[in-house]
Amino acid sequence: MADVAAAAGVSVSTVSRALRGLPGVGEEQRRRIEGIAAQLSYVVSPDASRLARGGTGRIAVVLDNVDRWFFGTVLAGIERVLRAADFDVLVYHVDGEEERQRFFADLPARRKVDGVIVVALPAPAHEFARLSLMGVHVVVAGGRMGEFECVRIDDVAAARTAVSHLTGLGHRHVAMLRTRDSGGAVWPTDQARTEGYLEAMAQVGVRPEDPDALLGDQDTPLGGTHPVLTIPFGADHGWAATERLISGPHPPTAIFAHSDEIAFGCLQALRHHGWSVPQDMSVVAIDDHPLSGVMGLTTVAQPVRTQGELAAMAMLGSLGGTPVAGAGGAGGAADHVVATTLVVRGSTGRPREAGAPLGSDG
Amino acid sequence: MADVAAAAGVSVSTVSRALRGLPGVGEEQRRRIEGIAAQLSYVVSPDASRLARGGTGRIAVVLDNVDRWFFGTVLAGIERVLRAADFDVLVYHVDGEEERQRFFADLPARRKVDGVIVVALPAPAHEFARLSLMGVHVVVAGGRMGEFECVRIDDVAAARTAVSHLTGLGHRHVAMLRTRDSGGAVWPTDQARTEGYLEAMAQVGVRPEDPDALLGDQDTPLGGTHPVLTIPFGADHGWAATERLISGPHPPTAIFAHSDEIAFGCLQALRHHGWSVPQDMSVVAIDDHPLSGVMGLTTVAQPVRTQGELAAMAMLGSLGGTPVAGAGGAGGAADHVVATTLVVRGSTGRPREAGAPLGSDG
Repeated sequence: MADVAAAAGVSVSTVSRALRGLPGVGEEQRRRIEGIAAQLSYVVSPDASRLARGGTGRIAVVLDNVDRWFFGTVLAGIERVLRAADFDVLVYHVDGEEERQRFFADLPARRKVDGVIVVALPAPAHEFARLSLMGVHVVVAGGRMGEFECVRIDDVAAARTAVSHLTGLGHRHVAMLRTRDSGGAVWPTDQARTEGYLEAMAQVGVRPEDPDALLGDQDTPLGGTHPVLTIPFGADHGWAATERLISGPHPPTAIFAHSDEIAFGCLQALRHHGWSVPQDMSVVAIDDHPLSGVMGLTTVAQPVRTQGELAAMAMLGSLGGTPVAGAGGAGGAADHVVATTLVVRGSTGRPREAGAPLGSDG
Repeated sequence: MADVAAAAGVSVSTVSRALRGLPGVGEEQRRRIEGIAAQLSYVVSPDASRLARGGTGRIAVVLDNVDRWFFGTVLAGIERVLRAADFDVLVYHVDGEEERQRFFADLPARRKVDGVIVVALPAPAHEFARLSLMGVHVVVAGGRMGEFECVRIDDVAAARTAVSHLTGLGHRHVAMLRTRDSGGAVWPTDQARTEGYLEAMAQVGVRPEDPDALLGDQDTPLGGTHPVLTIPFGADHGWAATERLISGPHPPTAIFAHSDEIAFGCLQALRHHGWSVPQDMSVVAIDDHPLSGVMGLTTVAQPVRTQGELAAMAMLGSLGGTPVAGAGGAGGAADHVVATTLVVRGSTGRPREAGAPLGSDG
């Protein structure tokens, strides 16, 4: 404002009065000052302006793995909606267990934002509960965590859809590839997808030797009817797990992978070892990653950008005092569930007749 | 502060004096007030505190396509370095031509940040030059734009490395797949990679019919010795372009793709049509995407997260008045170039002898 005053040859208070439309400045003088301010591209400090109104105009987005498609796509959806409502997005990338623990201990976004959107993180409940100390509304995108409002898919149903597609084709020996991060933390989605897998297998009368152990987060023996392996996220780990499965004494006829990127590794490992897909092995996953079309992967598609957009809309609704309609239980925070769709491509088919040679029609 | 005062049974000004270490508050009283403030997790408003010091404590990151691996990974690198220096990251996701134009016209980050890091955007110079109106330091990550400080790879050299690898194997009929966004804007990296391609081909005596037309952004005829196609980014477009190349009268023996994700589409299309890789067609690209290992793609690896980290360090250096050492020309902004490495996998090999049948050893 001092620059405008100097250029106009008037006092700072005159500039202030002119730009705020207060009396005591002539119309011609006001126009001249406005013109100079426009030339100098004078803008009111948004921080000072927001502070006066009591809000920061910013929303924190907390996520790990922003370099993965799912998280980047959710962020894109959040940013688009918040930007349109004139909110800025502060990104907190918590990369691994140590950074995550530090984030929830220190809450660095405190007093800097009007709300927090967390993209599903593998955080234990006691860490996560600290978010309530921030005194702002919290929305979770891409999973359910604690009692906070959330936008997600029904992971149990999505897994059931994927595995029922396999059992409907005649598969009874279906392996599952679960995932967790390198620190060993359990993903909110992973437990639910394992439940869906067990439900779909139970519907055709197949039960693991020890379901409690499985839900308790232990791998089952490779030779069993329910080989379940827990691997770090990534196509290379999908490749390595597939090699373990096909080199065992009783390889499954189908693999259900936690996500498409893991399944890409399965497909490539099978191809590398001369196994035909789907003749020798069917593969199905959850996501519908942008590469799944060219990879020919059958998958349960989830709307990812939409989950980010809905989470941002839920946040705006809470800031404006307008709760967004949700499916939450009595007294609980809203739980917005978006629909998934089975997309059948070339990676799934009927299991080979027992005794037919591997790779004979690949 | 009012909450602390109420809990301690003293005035707000006493709390203020106690916490700021001013005289007039006894030592015991001060310790008691500090204890209550700690219990109530009192924190000074960061905005008010920063405003008093004259900085915002925030850096804007402007990017499009945050849902793509390259951009998300650069963002992760930027965020890590800035967070460690106690800066917050404001993300501006400009998705497509219209949002990009609006961003550069309105400069919504103005007065909200101490600096701007732009992840290489396909913006024309006149739009981009408006960033200087913000009056803060600008750093570009992942490409060169205008005269701003930048961190990037040498795209000409990277393309020359990829294509020289092909010509060294004996290929003379090499197609290139360039890319641009749906609005038709040219990527800063794309022009440079095309130059590298032309240089490597010229080194073995192969020149396009009309190099000026090519650098002027026109596709060459499919039947020529230099089939160059410009496609939107994406594996599906790589697939479609490959189908065009292999259905033409004189298919090339090798494809150089702008980036790995496009090349994945090439590999899958070739496989789908029964072409063996590398016997019938070699494929090479630039990136070293996380999936390139399982896809068996030969590529020129670029350090992506590092580019984000270095861009953030350059920004911190400029804010602290310490210019980071760079390779900039006399008087120009620093130009930090990071090294690339050829990673040879299974997708490249010698061209098939003329006349040998396609797919005979796939």
